[in-house]
Amino acid sequence: MTAAGQGTVYRRVALIGLGLIASSMAHAIKAAGLADEIVGFAKSAESRAVAIDIGFVDRTAETAAEAVRGADLVVLAVPVGAMGAIAAEIGPHLAPGATVTDVGSVKQAVIDAVAPHIPAGVHFIPGHPIAGTEHSGPRSGFATLFQNRWWLLTPVPGTDPEATRRLRQLCESIGAKVDEMDAEHHDLVLAVTSHTPHLIAYTMVGVADDLARVTDSEVIQYSAAGFRDFTRIAASDPTMWRDVFLTNKDATLEILGRFTEELFALQRAIRLGDGAHLHAYFTRTRAIRRGIIEAGQDTSAPDFGRVQPPGK
Amino acid sequence: MTAAGQGTVYRRVALIGLGLIASSMAHAIKAAGLADEIVGFAKSAESRAVAIDIGFVDRTAETAAEAVRGADLVVLAVPVGAMGAIAAEIGPHLAPGATVTDVGSVKQAVIDAVAPHIPAGVHFIPGHPIAGTEHSGPRSGFATLFQNRWWLLTPVPGTDPEATRRLRQLCESIGAKVDEMDAEHHDLVLAVTSHTPHLIAYTMVGVADDLARVTDSEVIQYSAAGFRDFTRIAASDPTMWRDVFLTNKDATLEILGRFTEELFALQRAIRLGDGAHLHAYFTRTRAIRRGIIEAGQDTSAPDFGRVQPPGK
Repeated sequence: MTAAGQGTVYRRVALIGLGLIASSMAHAIKAAGLADEIVGFAKSAESRAVAIDIGFVDRTAETAAEAVRGADLVVLAVPVGAMGAIAAEIGPHLAPGATVTDVGSVKQAVIDAVAPHIPAGVHFIPGHPIAGTEHSGPRSGFATLFQNRWWLLTPVPGTDPEATRRLRQLCESIGAKVDEMDAEHHDLVLAVTSHTPHLIAYTMVGVADDLARVTDSEVIQYSAAGFRDFTRIAASDPTMWRDVFLTNKDATLEILGRFTEELFALQRAIRLGDGAHLHAYFTRTRAIRRGIIEAGQDTSAPDFGRVQPPGK
Repeated sequence: MTAAGQGTVYRRVALIGLGLIASSMAHAIKAAGLADEIVGFAKSAESRAVAIDIGFVDRTAETAAEAVRGADLVVLAVPVGAMGAIAAEIGPHLAPGATVTDVGSVKQAVIDAVAPHIPAGVHFIPGHPIAGTEHSGPRSGFATLFQNRWWLLTPVPGTDPEATRRLRQLCESIGAKVDEMDAEHHDLVLAVTSHTPHLIAYTMVGVADDLARVTDSEVIQYSAAGFRDFTRIAASDPTMWRDVFLTNKDATLEILGRFTEELFALQRAIRLGDGAHLHAYFTRTRAIRRGIIEAGQDTSAPDFGRVQPPGK
């Protein structure tokens, strides 16, 4: 395999899937000159055409197998439920010494689905950039999506340290902070910080939609901050999130059980008029927010310190 | 009562409570020159000193009774649970012809608590600006908080149309869109769009805090978009929210019941691996988001089109 050019981290990057994460990676890799060539594949011919049109890939391939040929980095950026089939297809075509990573929100299920298809001599290093917006598709990406966001890697035992170092370098070069953890632990932490909150937001928005006495237009018109934020979360890609819940089932169900328990305790306090219980609970949760701001994962500014994509 | 000066809507505005909403109103009223004088009262001497220091009131009073003397607009901006006691205190000191309004998030309970103390010849027009941030206190206000936000008035039958028109004019002059509705209906709509979402966010953040296996620092460090938004909501003022749930008990409990029902259906779909159910649900909720954006209550930009207070 030819060495990567000066300043680049990989010679040829193959993106399998051309949605929000893949297109943002491509924009960021191009902006920082981290690869000589980016090849893209998406099932949809329209997505491939958009990627060429916008110019975040140098070329597209008609199949995933063709896209990965000769690539020294392959990024699986499809919904978690589609990872296994893609891995089976590309496995025989992967270049010796190449690194395969993924960007799925669940890690153990991806390892179970993908690892059996990775040939000896190819490095599979699962990953998860904790970054996103409620938008999806090849037009939704922007180069600064990963700025100051965590990118968690969950390498399996025996992974080549040099391959991991190179992948870390790429993630860091597009602005992310990288950490490594065990896949099972990752899935529990994310069930708390992301998966269950998303399910709850979906539920609340669905309830609002169902209510006959509160007409849609009123819910929409007078939507206050709480509900507005929920609708943004609940506007996320349905296929991606279906797969998250189906593949991180155990952790999500466990956290949901705890959530319901706590919610019933607060509901009981409301019914009984126990203001002291409510006040103490709300005071405790306020402190967690301060911790997040101090950890630099958010700001107290009304725009949340969010990264603004250019021209939006 | 002296007529208000040229360009002004009220001669003297008395703000009872000097938190986020009152201080934002004061900033906005001063910026637009809508009153000749703003008098402030807060229970806390420190809050009164801050209000003078920042300069959003012209003077403060030592008691609520003293603050309302000679005012042609009195704004009750204290937690909903404190409205009744304040009304009892100021009732005998209200100027004939004056208007009393409030900014509480619950309306029927405020009407029940306040109306009996309002003397004949004084106009009580309950109100609720649907605007806020997770911050509280006299330092948290800014003049543009109400820009493009709804301000709901829930006048009781027989309210003087001219007094209502004047209050509407003030609200609109500081950027709000005004609508009128029945108090009971208001409380149900807000239970859906604001009160229940807040309780759910508080609950989820509390669950995360409780989990022993997921250390605080990890929850904070790797907090993804979903959870970050929840912590912001759950950082809201504990006293204000305790009062909201205690005073809008019936509507909140009803919506919570529907929420739990829906959540259990989704939980069951996860347990049974029913991906079609999940996908259909998530697709439906995505459409509601589009409605909100089209209604102009939010934008698709990552900063939510939020108003940015100066210097933050």
